[in-house]
Amino acid sequence: MRNVRVELDHAPYDIRIGRALLDNVAAIVEQLPQQRVAIVSNETVAPLYLQPLQVLFEAAGVQVHTIVLPDGERFKTWETLNLIFDGLLSARCERKTTLIALGGGVIGDMTGFAAAVYQRGVPFIQIPTTLLAQVDSSVGGKTAINHPLGKNMIGAFYQPRLVLADLATLDTLPAREFSAGMAEVIKYGLIDDLAFFEWLEAHIDAVMSRDVDALGYVVERCCQNKARIVAADERENGQRALLNLGHTFGHAIEAGLGYGAWLHGEAVAAGMVLAALASRELGQINDAELARIKALIAKAGLPVESPALGAERYLDLMAQDKKVDAGRIKFILLEKLGQSYIGELQTETIRAALKAGCAA
Amino acid sequence: MRNVRVELDHAPYDIRIGRALLDNVAAIVEQLPQQRVAIVSNETVAPLYLQPLQVLFEAAGVQVHTIVLPDGERFKTWETLNLIFDGLLSARCERKTTLIALGGGVIGDMTGFAAAVYQRGVPFIQIPTTLLAQVDSSVGGKTAINHPLGKNMIGAFYQPRLVLADLATLDTLPAREFSAGMAEVIKYGLIDDLAFFEWLEAHIDAVMSRDVDALGYVVERCCQNKARIVAADERENGQRALLNLGHTFGHAIEAGLGYGAWLHGEAVAAGMVLAALASRELGQINDAELARIKALIAKAGLPVESPALGAERYLDLMAQDKKVDAGRIKFILLEKLGQSYIGELQTETIRAALKAGCAA
Ligand SMILES: NC(=O)c1ccc[n+]([C@@H]2O[C@H](COP(=O)([O-])OP(=O)(O)OC[C@H]3O[C@@H](n4cnc5c(N)ncnc54)[C@H](O)[C@@H]3O)[C@@H](O)[C@H]2O)c1
Ligand SMILES: NC(=O)c1ccc[n+]([C@@H]2O[C@H](COP(=O)([O-])OP(=O)(O)OC[C@H]3O[C@@H](n4cnc5c(N)ncnc54)[C@H](O)[C@@H]3O)[C@@H](O)[C@H]2O)c1
Ligand SMILES: [Zn+2]
Ligand SMILES: [Zn+2]
Repeated sequence: MRNVRVELDHAPYDIRIGRALLDNVAAIVEQLPQQRVAIVSNETVAPLYLQPLQVLFEAAGVQVHTIVLPDGERFKTWETLNLIFDGLLSARCERKTTLIALGGGVIGDMTGFAAAVYQRGVPFIQIPTTLLAQVDSSVGGKTAINHPLGKNMIGAFYQPRLVLADLATLDTLPAREFSAGMAEVIKYGLIDDLAFFEWLEAHIDAVMSRDVDALGYVVERCCQNKARIVAADERENGQRALLNLGHTFGHAIEAGLGYGAWLHGEAVAAGMVLAALASRELGQINDAELARIKALIAKAGLPVESPALGAERYLDLMAQDKKVDAGRIKFILLEKLGQSYIGELQTETIRAALKAGCAA
Repeated sequence: MRNVRVELDHAPYDIRIGRALLDNVAAIVEQLPQQRVAIVSNETVAPLYLQPLQVLFEAAGVQVHTIVLPDGERFKTWETLNLIFDGLLSARCERKTTLIALGGGVIGDMTGFAAAVYQRGVPFIQIPTTLLAQVDSSVGGKTAINHPLGKNMIGAFYQPRLVLADLATLDTLPAREFSAGMAEVIKYGLIDDLAFFEWLEAHIDAVMSRDVDALGYVVERCCQNKARIVAADERENGQRALLNLGHTFGHAIEAGLGYGAWLHGEAVAAGMVLAALASRELGQINDAELARIKALIAKAGLPVESPALGAERYLDLMAQDKKVDAGRIKFILLEKLGQSYIGELQTETIRAALKAGCAA
């Protein structure tokens, strides 16, 4: 079993990575302040993993409430969140009842936000079951729901007490979802881990065939990277923003196409290509490096071309993004291959990147 | 001008108390990270105080967005909260835009919660305009909205950067609302400030006639008491629960009658009498002391008798309260006059208190 420690001032916690972790609930049980949990999952994941988990908890003397939500990013709303509150209140769950998220990033983000605000905060544990959730969303304490006027606009910073990444759950993950997670994996290489980027170039076939050793290494390395960045800047006042590489463009793609048309990871993949194109415009990476980035993204089964929304629409959507300060949009750009920084872009540079990166 | 400092580890802040503070916005402007604020108020308070405030801000070069909500506890819901998010997102408010609550506890609690979760947290300033909000709800960082299954069930601990208690705003406060605030005032005397309880007995007429010196002293003393208790226990793991004196019974009254029938302070007043009756049952205060408590509450224009909901209904409602741990209800009781503690009650003691304290 691999273990990554997230060193936060007030609430350090462990990410455990391995196969069949769910067969051993002891690690969770020892974290519970009360022998009572509420497991939140969705209609896809619950049939696969909820019942065995529930049986194990009950055998360990833990009372289990289950809350099964509809599946999909379009349900990452207040209305669905309220189903969690309804469930918790109907079962009279108290301040010491632990909320457990069993699912991908949508379940993790919603359950984490519910845990942050139910009775002003209850204990929280993550069991991420998608690659994206294991390498990204379950680490770092960002939680949120969407608002009709913007994605992840309502949320909280709220840390879990434990993250259990069971690689065995990835066996059932659809290929498209696996690829979406790979966008965030490749992101870590581009942010500041050239060695990992090159490891990925060399091992992309093993990773895509879900070789267990390759996967364990990928999840561990990504969690280490994210944990390091988050520990240095829990509240996103500075360097944490590097994790948004590809995301300013990516969010514009998601919003512009309507949430759900492209997966988050697909939009981030195309967004990273746009960020790379802008960096090339600035002369910071060359054509060969750009080609390597695009090749790795393509081998991961992800789009390298952005949808043709029109430059004006992109600019408008990006101006609404959260990463805006005094009207100026921040972009994460490549200083060189495998090293990124927080910067700004002239409108003409953005236009040039969009022209080169969007479908005709 | 009086000043009370709230000493919290991460975010100490000042409560400024005086008349016509609103005429001086400089104290606010110097706290703003960006020359942009969104003022949240309601349909009653906005016509009285919003426009002059807006004019002063604009004269100081601050861009002002205003969000005016419907008035009432029954609007302390997700739907109304969403109106704040709609307003902030339509105006494209950013992470550094400061939210200002201008109103009573309902506006303060909702705006504070909105500030806690909008884009995962934006700066927040309170301008409480009811006595209750000035002595209680604006101090300590508790924010919340109601859920159909329980009051204040969804919320966050989120501290303001500044609280401006302008005593002049109390001039327009209806008598019933002023009395409701007095319930929380008297509460501080009973929690652990016998000297203040006796000061109130001696000066209740001046306070009820809203004598400016008496009022300034009351608000300052209450804020000092609350700030001390909150600083010692920000997250309500221990002694902060003393602030709930009268509230376990009070919340049952509010829920049992339907929110809005009785004001929060009225329910707390009757609830404090029930707590006092239970304490007398336990032999911890005597009949004369009970009579003094009831007399002060009555002189403040508040009910000393609780509604006849029936003991079973009270017990059931209290079992749903947040202050429940592993199924056991916590009560704040009087160890003696002017000194309270966190305890539990036998069901028969609760029944006896209800029998003595409820209308026939
Ligand atoms: N909090 C953060 O820091 C952070 C970071 C990145 C993304 N996110 C959020 O995460 C969300 C995306 O997460 P996601 O990609 O995991 O999407 P998701 O949660 O929607 O999961 C993708 C799909 O896979 C299904 N699924 C999950 N686990 C499965 C399994 N083991 N087997 C079979 N099917 C399974 C889900 O039911 C869903 O249909 C977005 O809402 C995004 O905003 C949050
Ligand atoms: N956060 C906390 O720690 C805390 C503590 C106690 C109470 N509360 C909450 O506070 C709320 C009660 O607050 P409240 O008693 O201030 O109620 P409120 O906010 O509803 O205000 C009472 C009434 O007075 C009006 N009003 C406000 N200021 C006025 C003014 N200057 N002139 C004329 N009218 C004015 C309001 O519009 C409203 O109609 C409850 O929701 C309660 O849960 C919170
Ligand atoms: Zn992402
Ligand atoms: Zn109160």
